[in-house]
Amino acid sequence: MKYNQFKAMVITIASLPLGFSITYGAEQTSPNGKIRVHADVINGVPTYSIDFKGQEIIKPSTLGFELADGPDMMNGFKLMDVKTSSFDETWQPVWGENSNIRNHYNELHLCMDQPEHYRKMDLRFRIYNDGVGFRYEFPNNGVMTYFIIKEEKTQFAMTGDHKAWWIAGDYDTQEYDYTESRLSEIRDLMASSIYPNASQEQFSPTGVQTSLQLKTDDGVYLNLHEAALVDYSCMHLNLDDTSMVFTSWLTPDAQGNKGHHQTPCKSPWRTIMITDNACDILASNLILNLNEPCKYEDTSWIKPIKYVGVWWEMIGGGKPWDYTSDLPSVRLDSPDYSNAKPHGNHPANNENVKKYIDFAAEHGFDQVLVEGWNVGWEDWFGHSKDFVFDFVTPYPDFDIEMLNDYAHSKGVRLMMHHETSGSVRNYERHMAKAYDLMDKYGYNAVKSGYVGNMIPRGEHHYGQWLVNHYLYAVTEAAKHHIMVNAHEAVRPTGLCRTYPNLVGNESARGTEYEAFAGNKPSHTTVLPFTRLQGGPMDYTPGIFEMDMSKVDPNNNGHVNSTLARQLALYVTMYSPIQMAADVPEVYNKYMDAFQFIKDVPVDWDESKYLAAEPGKYIVAARREKGGKDWYVGCTSGEDGYEASLSLDFLEPGKNYMATIYEDAKDAHYLTNPQAYSISTKKVNSKTKLNMKAAPGGGYAISIKQL
Amino acid sequence: MKYNQFKAMVITIASLPLGFSITYGAEQTSPNGKIRVHADVINGVPTYSIDFKGQEIIKPSTLGFELADGPDMMNGFKLMDVKTSSFDETWQPVWGENSNIRNHYNELHLCMDQPEHYRKMDLRFRIYNDGVGFRYEFPNNGVMTYFIIKEEKTQFAMTGDHKAWWIAGDYDTQEYDYTESRLSEIRDLMASSIYPNASQEQFSPTGVQTSLQLKTDDGVYLNLHEAALVDYSCMHLNLDDTSMVFTSWLTPDAQGNKGHHQTPCKSPWRTIMITDNACDILASNLILNLNEPCKYEDTSWIKPIKYVGVWWEMIGGGKPWDYTSDLPSVRLDSPDYSNAKPHGNHPANNENVKKYIDFAAEHGFDQVLVEGWNVGWEDWFGHSKDFVFDFVTPYPDFDIEMLNDYAHSKGVRLMMHHETSGSVRNYERHMAKAYDLMDKYGYNAVKSGYVGNMIPRGEHHYGQWLVNHYLYAVTEAAKHHIMVNAHEAVRPTGLCRTYPNLVGNESARGTEYEAFAGNKPSHTTVLPFTRLQGGPMDYTPGIFEMDMSKVDPNNNGHVNSTLARQLALYVTMYSPIQMAADVPEVYNKYMDAFQFIKDVPVDWDESKYLAAEPGKYIVAARREKGGKDWYVGCTSGEDGYEASLSLDFLEPGKNYMATIYEDAKDAHYLTNPQAYSISTKKVNSKTKLNMKAAPGGGYAISIKQL
Repeated sequence: MKYNQFKAMVITIASLPLGFSITYGAEQTSPNGKIRVHADVINGVPTYSIDFKGQEIIKPSTLGFELADGPDMMNGFKLMDVKTSSFDETWQPVWGENSNIRNHYNELHLCMDQPEHYRKMDLRFRIYNDGVGFRYEFPNNGVMTYFIIKEEKTQFAMTGDHKAWWIAGDYDTQEYDYTESRLSEIRDLMASSIYPNASQEQFSPTGVQTSLQLKTDDGVYLNLHEAALVDYSCMHLNLDDTSMVFTSWLTPDAQGNKGHHQTPCKSPWRTIMITDNACDILASNLILNLNEPCKYEDTSWIKPIKYVGVWWEMIGGGKPWDYTSDLPSVRLDSPDYSNAKPHGNHPANNENVKKYIDFAAEHGFDQVLVEGWNVGWEDWFGHSKDFVFDFVTPYPDFDIEMLNDYAHSKGVRLMMHHETSGSVRNYERHMAKAYDLMDKYGYNAVKSGYVGNMIPRGEHHYGQWLVNHYLYAVTEAAKHHIMVNAHEAVRPTGLCRTYPNLVGNESARGTEYEAFAGNKPSHTTVLPFTRLQGGPMDYTPGIFEMDMSKVDPNNNGHVNSTLARQLALYVTMYSPIQMAADVPEVYNKYMDAFQFIKDVPVDWDESKYLAAEPGKYIVAARREKGGKDWYVGCTSGEDGYEASLSLDFLEPGKNYMATIYEDAKDAHYLTNPQAYSISTKKVNSKTKLNMKAAPGGGYAISIKQL
Repeated sequence: MKYNQFKAMVITIASLPLGFSITYGAEQTSPNGKIRVHADVINGVPTYSIDFKGQEIIKPSTLGFELADGPDMMNGFKLMDVKTSSFDETWQPVWGENSNIRNHYNELHLCMDQPEHYRKMDLRFRIYNDGVGFRYEFPNNGVMTYFIIKEEKTQFAMTGDHKAWWIAGDYDTQEYDYTESRLSEIRDLMASSIYPNASQEQFSPTGVQTSLQLKTDDGVYLNLHEAALVDYSCMHLNLDDTSMVFTSWLTPDAQGNKGHHQTPCKSPWRTIMITDNACDILASNLILNLNEPCKYEDTSWIKPIKYVGVWWEMIGGGKPWDYTSDLPSVRLDSPDYSNAKPHGNHPANNENVKKYIDFAAEHGFDQVLVEGWNVGWEDWFGHSKDFVFDFVTPYPDFDIEMLNDYAHSKGVRLMMHHETSGSVRNYERHMAKAYDLMDKYGYNAVKSGYVGNMIPRGEHHYGQWLVNHYLYAVTEAAKHHIMVNAHEAVRPTGLCRTYPNLVGNESARGTEYEAFAGNKPSHTTVLPFTRLQGGPMDYTPGIFEMDMSKVDPNNNGHVNSTLARQLALYVTMYSPIQMAADVPEVYNKYMDAFQFIKDVPVDWDESKYLAAEPGKYIVAARREKGGKDWYVGCTSGEDGYEASLSLDFLEPGKNYMATIYEDAKDAHYLTNPQAYSISTKKVNSKTKLNMKAAPGGGYAISIKQL
């Protein structure tokens, strides 16, 4: 890294024309000059504000901490030094939307003393062309060596009653549908935004989660999130809906504290994306850039994955993960299934898994996920059961050696599944042996899960204890060259740059809810603005049968999407790990549409967002890694989306063959979701296509260079 | 195991002569008929009482549980079945006071239903000649599969205002001096019984710990404790000092609950020793017998240990565990001592450790403990520091390879030290590597420590979480053939029978307090009645310099013992791991007395308690394992102890040479502690010796067959 440190420019504005007086200690702009951060200590209180194109976009907002073990760090500060610098480099991710990412920012670094308590605190701002990241830094000055956060009090003062796409602040789940409303409407809409979950705890009628997407009446898109959440409690935002000021609200531990810290240390970055084009939010690399470079020397073992799995027939089909109904309570210290009569409805059995392996091999998938392969599922949930799984003992009808051998003989791997049931002491105790087992049988990826309340009891999914655990699981996996796709873990914050074997997370309402209560048709037009800012989501798209009663007569659910849109999601929801989530029997009925899933890559050289509006539509185009072919996806909300699609991203002068998978004229996510048409067309960079997505629909296009 | 199950004898006594009516569902006696347990369900409430030699010794006492997640299990019970059986076997411990232990009891097993809630609960009593053990058992009936204990409500109803030797009930420390008082005096004496500790939390002005030693005015000795504490919260006793009824009081978890359980399961045994001879309490094997047989097939690697260590110069001598004063906050993820100036006063350095190795080799010790060998001690305490030690990185001045090689070349091993600072997630994460390091360098024993408040925060030293952890550390160590001596862990409950690599615990106020504030002169006359009931204590005796200011000019402490008594403790305080705790320089001044420590074995074929009264004196004699020599020890309290000592335990017709280490005439623990005399005398089984222990004094005798 090359830093150009140059002398601080301290500007003091004694009096502003508008009649009020603010003294700004320092300021810094984005490289293109459009974003300007002002930061100072005003009457002892650290304060910042942000302008965008000369207009205030974040009003003066105070910064600080309430401590549980000493005087607060809210005031009494003195600005001691201001440093500025610039940085510009281009780096290459192991996998991603683009093979080159530019990290270009100007930095503003404030050094503060709190003389009464002999403490020091720094603020570091990095200003990008598409937003700002800032964090607190706590040097070790020999006096403040340890501290306990009672609350972080970072304000984000809005300039108005913006529109927001939000989910309820919750210490234990992120699996809510997004609500679109004005900030002032959050309070009234809060109760209706909450859907039951296996573990959940809200904290405020105006508390929301990040990444929070906002839009001002002037058409400025704001996005609030955090980057590089490491050994720190995950941040929510609590809105004062009179002043429209958000204040950070951390996740508490079992004792109600919000973080134990040791200097020298730093907070995660608090991020504010600011653009006047929605596509720029989607294209932003701000959060990845604020994370540390990759910590692994060898990353050759990290590979994007397209997979199928023994999963949807449980989630949507009502089949169980367990093996028997004879064991109401399984003691994992002496699991004895020898006398347990199988109920005969256990999908993770040799025959069924072989069927998926055959299907994966035939259609070019890398892996087959198998859930319910290991003993303990009979009583895994809702009992605060400590020793709930051992992660190494297969059910009697799952021959782990035979199945892996069979898969490998066909060029396919099995994907491991580790459901922890939230019991993380148990998981950590068994982790080494669990990873050893994976090594032994040739697994190189694990889908892990954290369903239900946590053990240690009283801890929350998004508290410091668990944040620490999730990363521990990833770094321990790396020692075994294992990739991790963690469900129900804390929402990602760009750590996949630093630890690229974290290939996926769920951390939001995924496709599984289509089998339960449905997702809003607009859901996939919001997720890329919010959840995906921090990293890829294992959304598990590819559902072709929308009428759940055809999967399970007892399931009256409906998948709120057209079939064509399910294809588009492989492009619009970027992830290096993509599932084709439906069952082989369904795919076999729609092999022409399934071809797109077979074709679409899971790693890219180049990505372009062509059109986007949260809640309405997203159109993305991506060029495959190391190739010349492009793939386009469009997902739309309740209103559908019709527009001309310019293919000007194609290489000029070259010809391509486009295969277009689109909603049929009369398609509709509710009434006619499986109506699609497939056509082919020669195209080039001058081609414009008139494309139409049905309500809750979309389209997918593969464009192969001729 | 051979069980003779025979038909239950149900006795109904409709009316007792004294005018009150009790229906006893069942009864059972000890093999010798002197102890009789009555048990029944009375008006739906499980109840028991105990007679001793025809006199009531435990009044009718109720049994049950308050649950946190359902209706209580306090009443509404129905007695469904009563089973009785007998058991008699003799087993051989891996190490112990005796090479053969008889396990002889009659059993009474009550099966109860709680029909309203479709639940079942059993009570199993085992009646020995020296006491009673009983436990709750929870079958899995398919209805109650999981439950959360709010409180266990086991009563021990005393028959009077007995004398008691007690320490304050506390969730986090056992390191209190014993108070001798009537039960009715506990409340008034509670505050003065409490001494500051690194972690402590009392719960009641009449709450006390087990093992609790009691004595009735009729001269009956009672002892209340528990056996086989496994994955269950440790029990305290709370006294109703009006009715003189003790009720169990479990240690809470971070949420205030007192145990998460899964059926089938059982409580630890609640134990009541009942004798009219104090020596029988000391000689009792009731608690060992109530534990499961050894779970290890191969125990050849488990060996008793006599050791010295780099320890007393820190504890008593004021030297630090840490290496430098330059690092107020050590980050263990990047520990950097390269620029840290050593303060030059770090005892765990190569030169000093070699001195101890030389001393150990010269005098026949097995091992040398070294504390402060590993990085992290600069800020290890009081910060709730998560990643506090890595257990593998030596300080720059501790050459782990060289020192182990040097020790092994002299026939000595180093003993590992793992201080966890109460951070047990961190310990569990590093445990495998820590044990691997021990394997690599030839360590086979670890002294572990749990000083300070626990992490997970909110958990207590004696709660279920930690009880589970301590045993996990032991069983994981066994996989590496490592012996464990855990300090600040929960008081032992006989688990060393099942897991004999648990060679020691502290779990009480040890010799270290002699360097801080002193122990009562009577302390070592009480510990064998209380703390030692559950298993051996690493009391670290052998202090020869009682004036602590001679060890450290800043230490005005005084060791409340004569030197002769320090020798006796190797006999009176049974342990397979015994330290000679003082520093070589001191021992070199008293080599004649030190000879006893060199001679005394740490494993025995046979043990006899010759005289005992809690708070007054204990005289014990033991025959060495596989040999014919005997060793006698006497420890006395404030009043000293003078009595004739009959050597009738010697083999008749054989001659022996006794070497007698005793207090000099004018010895006194306070004013003249180092006055001792050594004499030799030919003795045989008819010899009677007039022996006198000074106040706070004692004597030690080695008796070698000629």
